[in-house]
Amino acid sequence: MPSPTAPSASSPPATLDLTADVVTLTAAVCDLASVSHEEGPLADAVEAALRPLTHLTVTRHGNTVVARTDLGRAERVLLAGHLDTVPLTDPPNLPTTRRGEGAHEVLVGRGSVDMKGGVAVQLRLAHDLVEPNRDVTYVLYEAEEVDGEFNGLAHLAADDPAVLAADFAVLLEPTDGAVEGGCKGTLRVDVEVPGVAAHSARPWNGDNAIHGAAAVLGRLVAYDARTVHVDGLDYHEALQAVGITGGIAGNVIPDRCTVTVNYRYAPDKSPEQAAAHVVEVFDGFAVTVRDNAPGARPGLDRPAAQAFVEALGVPVGPKEGWTDVARFSALDVPAVNFGPGDPNLAHTDDEHCPVHQYVDAEAALRRWLA
Amino acid sequence: MPSPTAPSASSPPATLDLTADVVTLTAAVCDLASVSHEEGPLADAVEAALRPLTHLTVTRHGNTVVARTDLGRAERVLLAGHLDTVPLTDPPNLPTTRRGEGAHEVLVGRGSVDMKGGVAVQLRLAHDLVEPNRDVTYVLYEAEEVDGEFNGLAHLAADDPAVLAADFAVLLEPTDGAVEGGCKGTLRVDVEVPGVAAHSARPWNGDNAIHGAAAVLGRLVAYDARTVHVDGLDYHEALQAVGITGGIAGNVIPDRCTVTVNYRYAPDKSPEQAAAHVVEVFDGFAVTVRDNAPGARPGLDRPAAQAFVEALGVPVGPKEGWTDVARFSALDVPAVNFGPGDPNLAHTDDEHCPVHQYVDAEAALRRWLA
Repeated sequence: MPSPTAPSASSPPATLDLTADVVTLTAAVCDLASVSHEEGPLADAVEAALRPLTHLTVTRHGNTVVARTDLGRAERVLLAGHLDTVPLTDPPNLPTTRRGEGAHEVLVGRGSVDMKGGVAVQLRLAHDLVEPNRDVTYVLYEAEEVDGEFNGLAHLAADDPAVLAADFAVLLEPTDGAVEGGCKGTLRVDVEVPGVAAHSARPWNGDNAIHGAAAVLGRLVAYDARTVHVDGLDYHEALQAVGITGGIAGNVIPDRCTVTVNYRYAPDKSPEQAAAHVVEVFDGFAVTVRDNAPGARPGLDRPAAQAFVEALGVPVGPKEGWTDVARFSALDVPAVNFGPGDPNLAHTDDEHCPVHQYVDAEAALRRWLA
Repeated sequence: MPSPTAPSASSPPATLDLTADVVTLTAAVCDLASVSHEEGPLADAVEAALRPLTHLTVTRHGNTVVARTDLGRAERVLLAGHLDTVPLTDPPNLPTTRRGEGAHEVLVGRGSVDMKGGVAVQLRLAHDLVEPNRDVTYVLYEAEEVDGEFNGLAHLAADDPAVLAADFAVLLEPTDGAVEGGCKGTLRVDVEVPGVAAHSARPWNGDNAIHGAAAVLGRLVAYDARTVHVDGLDYHEALQAVGITGGIAGNVIPDRCTVTVNYRYAPDKSPEQAAAHVVEVFDGFAVTVRDNAPGARPGLDRPAAQAFVEALGVPVGPKEGWTDVARFSALDVPAVNFGPGDPNLAHTDDEHCPVHQYVDAEAALRRWLA
């Protein structure tokens, strides 16, 4: 969907001061509201702030802005974050406010967690790190909070994958300051149980598909989900029913029952391997794949990743849910999630983040790259 | 819903010749189309044909017509049939036509099976049996083919149950010429399986209600349905899932799964006993009764019923589905189904009936009552 707010070609973009402290800059980035499909003004401001920096090459792709150093370093790393947010509350939870004092001070408002802090950290690093120890690509992209067809990172991966080439990527999604590596893949299938319809007063004339589904549920209950060690992290697989439907009327023996099953699989498996496994589990039933998104290896065995973990000195765990890191993995770029903010507060009406987390995240990445 | 066709107070009713042979009369009754809620003209014609018969007392209740002898016999029996039909086909399957010859001759059109033949048989008997060997109540009622709230028999049972008092009742629904005694009761319950919602990438934070439903389905599969002998007939009970729902999204562990179960129970049980049994079967789960209609005993041990079966000399079996005979049973009137027409052709586009079945049914009932 094109943005109803066209990029402001005629009026000058808002100004972002990249020399301000990261908390001030985060507030300024939040206050340039950028609900999905309305990222134009923020993308303009980001582009305008980065263009004058001669150590960076800046390109624009829709409302996605990419900036990169080209120092010929042995390694290239990529930092990425999305510019958009979910809609504001009513009344609007913007402009941001600050609440509390000292270690308890928080920034309150839409984007303070998901993920304008990560955007501000990137902008600070992009401004200050004129000669980073690794070449860096900064990707600030549009439309992460909506259907994947609009996703700016997906568009780049499809249209110009060379822009995303790197040895390692960090997605600055909120992780409460921990490192969450890679992600599991997710496969959704429908398992069909056939039957023969009949009047429920004379069930012996039919074959009850819901009763037949007992065997499918039995296999799910008995399933022994594996824990798989990949690149230094343990991923907990899961095979779970997420839906079941059967029956057309209160007096009819149903001739069909469908169990929808979600398989979350470790990133050592391809989508094809995952699908083959599920077909095997439900041997004897018709299995239809509804969607299948690959996982992402954390790549924590790579030098750039090891240096990242060492420099940060924060807890490292697996990412159990699916995230945009999988888009990097598909390009053979291992990736982790690391960013300020408690993910449980993302999208909430009371979105807020301790300001020290912005400072800490910037400092951690600076230790790694400076 | 009141009929859009008001009873024709101003124009004279159509004429039904009760001295015509039963096949001719059936065709005439069919040709007075009477889709549910539009029974007025047919009820008018029936009333007009019966009123002049001095051996009958005729009353009218909405579009339901009741006629009765009052000879002071030791027994009273009741014959009943509904006046309405399901909608006509497009183009209309009326007026009726006759097809074939001799033993293969059939009457074709809406109502030929369900159940204008049974209405015509009653009208012939009501006309001819001036001094039947048992007192007879003839009930020709409206709105059987629609929601129970409109059912003319149910209205009589609620408003004026004395009208339906009898030692035995015959419902002239199509049974292909057999006697089907009583009917099973039908109970529908929802069995709720609780769970705890979680993201499907982290199912260990939740409790999958669909997986929990495996235990419910297991009990259904293992259930040993009884065959129960009641008043000389064997009723086959059944406990069957007729619906199952669970799941709200492809990435959420469901916190609820509902299995809808239909229990068809022999008429030796009250609705309360049936409900208690199902609650016991699903001990440990919440069971909510959605509806519960009692069955009907066939009463084939009563003298009037035994005389009926002997006089007819046709096969006698249990009625497995629920029918309006249960409304008689609720008034302590045992009842059977017996009528011309193959029930599998009821409501079909090609509704038709061998004409000899009308003749045979009239002759059989005449043997019993003359």
